[in-house]
Amino acid sequence: MTQSADLEDFLAALRDIVGRQACLTSADAMAPYLVEERRLFQGEAAAVVRPANTEEVSRVLALCSEHGVAVVPQGGNTGACGGGVPLSRRAIVLATERMDRIRAIDADNATITVEAGCILANLQAAAREAGFLFPLSLGGEGSCRIGGNLSTNAGGINVLHYGNARELMLGLEVVLPDGRVWNGLRGLRKDNTGYALKHLFVGAEGTLGVITAATLKLFPLPRDRQTAFVAVPSPQAAIELLAHARDVSGDSVTAFELLPRIGLDLGFKNMGGRDPLQQVYSWYALIELSSARPRGLREVFEEILEAGLESGMVLDAAIAETEEQRRELWRLREITAGGHQHQEGGLIKHDISVPVSAIPAMIERGTAAVLERLPGTRVIAFGHAGDGNLHFNLVQPVGHEAQAFFDLRDTMNRIVHDIVHELDGSISAEHGIGLLKIDEMTRYKTPLELELMHRIRQAIDPANIMNPGKVLPPLRSR
Amino acid sequence: MTQSADLEDFLAALRDIVGRQACLTSADAMAPYLVEERRLFQGEAAAVVRPANTEEVSRVLALCSEHGVAVVPQGGNTGACGGGVPLSRRAIVLATERMDRIRAIDADNATITVEAGCILANLQAAAREAGFLFPLSLGGEGSCRIGGNLSTNAGGINVLHYGNARELMLGLEVVLPDGRVWNGLRGLRKDNTGYALKHLFVGAEGTLGVITAATLKLFPLPRDRQTAFVAVPSPQAAIELLAHARDVSGDSVTAFELLPRIGLDLGFKNMGGRDPLQQVYSWYALIELSSARPRGLREVFEEILEAGLESGMVLDAAIAETEEQRRELWRLREITAGGHQHQEGGLIKHDISVPVSAIPAMIERGTAAVLERLPGTRVIAFGHAGDGNLHFNLVQPVGHEAQAFFDLRDTMNRIVHDIVHELDGSISAEHGIGLLKIDEMTRYKTPLELELMHRIRQAIDPANIMNPGKVLPPLRSR
Repeated sequence: MTQSADLEDFLAALRDIVGRQACLTSADAMAPYLVEERRLFQGEAAAVVRPANTEEVSRVLALCSEHGVAVVPQGGNTGACGGGVPLSRRAIVLATERMDRIRAIDADNATITVEAGCILANLQAAAREAGFLFPLSLGGEGSCRIGGNLSTNAGGINVLHYGNARELMLGLEVVLPDGRVWNGLRGLRKDNTGYALKHLFVGAEGTLGVITAATLKLFPLPRDRQTAFVAVPSPQAAIELLAHARDVSGDSVTAFELLPRIGLDLGFKNMGGRDPLQQVYSWYALIELSSARPRGLREVFEEILEAGLESGMVLDAAIAETEEQRRELWRLREITAGGHQHQEGGLIKHDISVPVSAIPAMIERGTAAVLERLPGTRVIAFGHAGDGNLHFNLVQPVGHEAQAFFDLRDTMNRIVHDIVHELDGSISAEHGIGLLKIDEMTRYKTPLELELMHRIRQAIDPANIMNPGKVLPPLRSR
Repeated sequence: MTQSADLEDFLAALRDIVGRQACLTSADAMAPYLVEERRLFQGEAAAVVRPANTEEVSRVLALCSEHGVAVVPQGGNTGACGGGVPLSRRAIVLATERMDRIRAIDADNATITVEAGCILANLQAAAREAGFLFPLSLGGEGSCRIGGNLSTNAGGINVLHYGNARELMLGLEVVLPDGRVWNGLRGLRKDNTGYALKHLFVGAEGTLGVITAATLKLFPLPRDRQTAFVAVPSPQAAIELLAHARDVSGDSVTAFELLPRIGLDLGFKNMGGRDPLQQVYSWYALIELSSARPRGLREVFEEILEAGLESGMVLDAAIAETEEQRRELWRLREITAGGHQHQEGGLIKHDISVPVSAIPAMIERGTAAVLERLPGTRVIAFGHAGDGNLHFNLVQPVGHEAQAFFDLRDTMNRIVHDIVHELDGSISAEHGIGLLKIDEMTRYKTPLELELMHRIRQAIDPANIMNPGKVLPPLRSR
């Protein structure tokens, strides 16, 4: 049988499993599934399938195994590294979007069990209706899906207190490459019965199987929430303020975002808004304390800020008095993140983390090295500093040519990532590896670590049909 | 070369690596390393080595790989399931006790890096001196070692709020079976660069490599701590009270221990002490709230208890007014755990977990089934109910013959574990599998899950030299 005849058979069998409506093969219908938001990668595929349930996913994977067709799982297709882009005419996209049910909420166990295709915002809403907080929260929450969040171990603004997607997960249901279903959907806080299989699939970006459902932790809803926008003299002062605030507030610091003046300025310029403080400072921290205890955080926060003013860790601060003011302060975070993305020409982004104690060194050394390479480059280092995570974004010098700046991407990546590596940090804090950072894996992971990952891959997906070409660079011959 | 000549060569090479003093081969010197506390298993070994550092561990493992000698890593030898017992004259015990340094404390990052042989209590003390809490806390903390705690994913009394050993771990240094050292000692809260290798080694009970060091999370020291001994009408009421307390206290519930009257009675009888409440009740919860916020928990706790009294979830309660009273209340937990261990004849223990919501069903169904099999059996179901973890211990009927009761062990395990399984629980919540529960793995894990574990094992330790015979039952032929 020719390869294309085999593919026709395969597609016919695929349609038998999911139904004609749920198996897209026309270029138009497939188009939105073949590119990611930033359009860095243009993919190709034999089909996009939209299974309705775990049973269909199982049958699709068994079929793909039989025919040697690659499977690229896709949730909301909001990934930033191309992990969801299919790369071959002998690949299918497996879109989880129809599998979006909340299967169960167990209030006494404080857990929720959901299907992979559930949109994060819907999951949050279901938790809230049941009187709980599901704390995972990030920019794409209106369209990203929990299966993708787990497969990329998503972070976001509440990691400092609640952890990444991984830490919120108690159990998983996974369809393995050969179509067998592993039911690890346990809602247990303690279970020491062998290897932690569930942790392998989180952050694996679909290279070991398809997460089809998850049991996740719920938390008490916050009743007291205090938000402040705080001017600090330096990143070092911000880090000390964070340590002090965590200590005094009883670990109630649920967000701690470091914002540089230049990010704010570009935000005001391109997205509007106004300064909540009278003077201009170089660095700010957006700090939120929250607790389910109904009262007391305001006093705690004022004590923290007063002590900070006395010791010089704090220069000025605005505390939100109303929910509207709170939203205004959070908008400063949004415009800092958004105000330099499209409006200032060439942009080179880095999603990095270092130990929290190394944030000041990262900013100082990273900025100096970038400026040495190209004076005038605007360094917007902002983000979840409370977890050691910075979005270390570089905007072209004013008047520079955008493409010429973007062409420096590899050079700038090298400069920034080498410093991250020296500081024992990570070249992908939140966004994963996908296609975008696969060469960086070769550079910054030891051969031993890559070998271990390959052995795991080989153990779980020996036929290499799950999202091939992502996460792991090919093993170098020895 | 004969096998015994090879063994002599091996031992000579071993002495060359660690030094004569650190390589024990006499029966007397080895004796304490060959049995565990409960003396359920008597082991045998060619030698006990006590390496001084990671480099020596690396060379020992390379040597063992070369000679096909099994390696049984051992920390404080406090395990409850025989995981640290060597099983062959072609095995060595690798004791980490000399590797007990605190390598570093990073206050701004709130992390501590320690060697595997550090005694848990010493680690707690080092953290405290630096102004932090290291929250892992359990009965054996004066002699267990952190490498063992990580290898068994230890639990203890603070899991409800802080998580198991796994959740406290950020990075590991591991010597692989062939002697290569994987340096995964990262102190990062966010790192999405490939598979979560570190999670494989936690809870693997030394079957995938030797954990030689770890970077662990630190937390603010509690400043406000409130402890109460609360009489409740039933386990169901206790679970509802827990949910209410977590909700109202802002997740400040750091311990929630369920205690049955019969456990308390045997504790008073065999270990002394007196009732803090005037009347006798069937069930109690020992509840502790704590927070680094300096004040306010007492009011919160009183509100919780008053609401509980009104709704009937609480029958009576004693709140500790002093540290001494607090210790007295915690002693009620200790005598409940200790008062039936040796003094009442035959004892059959179970370390189980279920979803928190299933605790009442577990106690009710488990007790009924056990009593049906042997009327008069005393069921002491107590423990960390806040995590769904119960120590479901069975004490022989009064006047029964101890050995005859103990001979019912397999029968009683089957009765209890079958119910655990039906309730989607775990047959080993805290203590792991070791040798003791290996047959239960075959019974309660699906063949697929066991196969996945075997594949991981094969991928990391193809020669099967790491703690063979533990955790994983042999694969059944298909």
